[in-house]
Amino acid sequence: MLSEFELIAKYFTRPARTAALGVGDDCALLRPPAGLVLALTIDTLSENTHFLPGADPRRLGHKSLAVNLSDLAAMGADPRWFLLAIALPDVDEAWLEAFAAGLFALAEAHAIELIGGDTTRGPRTITITAIGTLPPGYALRRDAAQAGDDVWLSGATGSAALGLAHLKGKIALTAEAAARCIARLEQPAPRVALGQRLRGVAAAAIDVSDGLLAGGDDYELVFTAAADRRAAVEAAGRAANVAVTRIGRILAGAPEVRLLDRAGKPLRVEPLGFDHFR
Amino acid sequence: MLSEFELIAKYFTRPARTAALGVGDDCALLRPPAGLVLALTIDTLSENTHFLPGADPRRLGHKSLAVNLSDLAAMGADPRWFLLAIALPDVDEAWLEAFAAGLFALAEAHAIELIGGDTTRGPRTITITAIGTLPPGYALRRDAAQAGDDVWLSGATGSAALGLAHLKGKIALTAEAAARCIARLEQPAPRVALGQRLRGVAAAAIDVSDGLLAGGDDYELVFTAAADRRAAVEAAGRAANVAVTRIGRILAGAPEVRLLDRAGKPLRVEPLGFDHFR
Repeated sequence: MLSEFELIAKYFTRPARTAALGVGDDCALLRPPAGLVLALTIDTLSENTHFLPGADPRRLGHKSLAVNLSDLAAMGADPRWFLLAIALPDVDEAWLEAFAAGLFALAEAHAIELIGGDTTRGPRTITITAIGTLPPGYALRRDAAQAGDDVWLSGATGSAALGLAHLKGKIALTAEAAARCIARLEQPAPRVALGQRLRGVAAAAIDVSDGLLAGGDDYELVFTAAADRRAAVEAAGRAANVAVTRIGRILAGAPEVRLLDRAGKPLRVEPLGFDHFR
Repeated sequence: MLSEFELIAKYFTRPARTAALGVGDDCALLRPPAGLVLALTIDTLSENTHFLPGADPRRLGHKSLAVNLSDLAAMGADPRWFLLAIALPDVDEAWLEAFAAGLFALAEAHAIELIGGDTTRGPRTITITAIGTLPPGYALRRDAAQAGDDVWLSGATGSAALGLAHLKGKIALTAEAAARCIARLEQPAPRVALGQRLRGVAAAAIDVSDGLLAGGDDYELVFTAAADRRAAVEAAGRAANVAVTRIGRILAGAPEVRLLDRAGKPLRVEPLGFDHFR
């Protein structure tokens, strides 16, 4: 069986590209680009909580990084570097090879470099810290929404929750719909290009991985922009090849969500968002 | 029961000090200090692998950060910021309060700031990414040892392994020795001050958390320095209030460890270091 150090060398080591020192020492070393702000995020995927036992390892490698890239996208940041902490119950080389293939395919697509990590034995858990860069003053912070801003949604939400319900046997989708919804659940496409193009256009942004109004695991962006930026938002969506839909408006006053039907009549809103402890 | 968001607000949110944006958004934002190199590390502690069920939560909070500070120390870096990913099987407020107290006490002692995190349900697992800074060219890289360098050890190793053996009932220490060894196991003191003072003095350094020759979980530094820097190494140890002991010498030739007894006779060396999968 591979040792821990052979495992790291075989599956998780790439030559350092932009890092001054990559995988293999106590720390990685970076020279941060002058004049830019760093955006940092950390996210964990745990077996049973975030993925089912037996989940496809290639898709899991993809998703482990995708959820972090989605956070960078929600700040409008350019992906740069990541660190990977992985706990595994055993060394399964076929699993590792597929996991690494999915992880690095997405990493290469977004030019984000693995610079360090930690490999331990334990219940299957993947934690990634991703780091991006931004010009100062351009981050899409969630506290930047203004009364009167439009509220926009990228792509569409709900497919991931349908895919999960199908996998759990709660609903039965057609084969075509099941494949599409399960791919949305297991291989989400982080909206990095859209986030980048919304810098200087949108005001506030968040990702809706915890659910927009119900369900969850959709790695779409909800963002606000001033009403006079509608053409610019639509141009950003076209340039990033992502649909953008105006779904509401920020009102002045105490925080409250009002959901209206097509006729403008209020709909009852259930408690919002996924909560791990509720 | 606390919700996930109440839990984060109550136990893991502090006002941002040096960060441009701290806990609570999709990413944290930092303006990296001009002209410095960043050192980054990630480490996981998993229940059953790294700590026993029922481990004291205050000590676990301390240790979760200490293992990362030890990696920064091994590069000679100044601690700056950290991100915390924590998976918990349930919300136990007494546990959380004690864990946070241990974590933040050590964070404050080293002026390292929590800037972001992730809280999920799952087997008890703590992953921290710590970030430090260094002047360019001063990192204590493990590839920097030169033939002829002295090899040095900070503090002493072995106590943590004794503490663990005692806890597991494999040996019986006196009450006084047990308390001392268990404290070394559960509340290691990362050698941050020594690492900082070894910048420009030592050549290569690593921490020996995976064991120096046997045992493990000692957060001491092994480092090399040119033979003409002995007085400077001893001064660094005194300034950091840590014993430093010259334990060997780097030889030219193929990598190999030769362990000699007091009389200079070779001792048999067992396979070195802890491996999670062996």
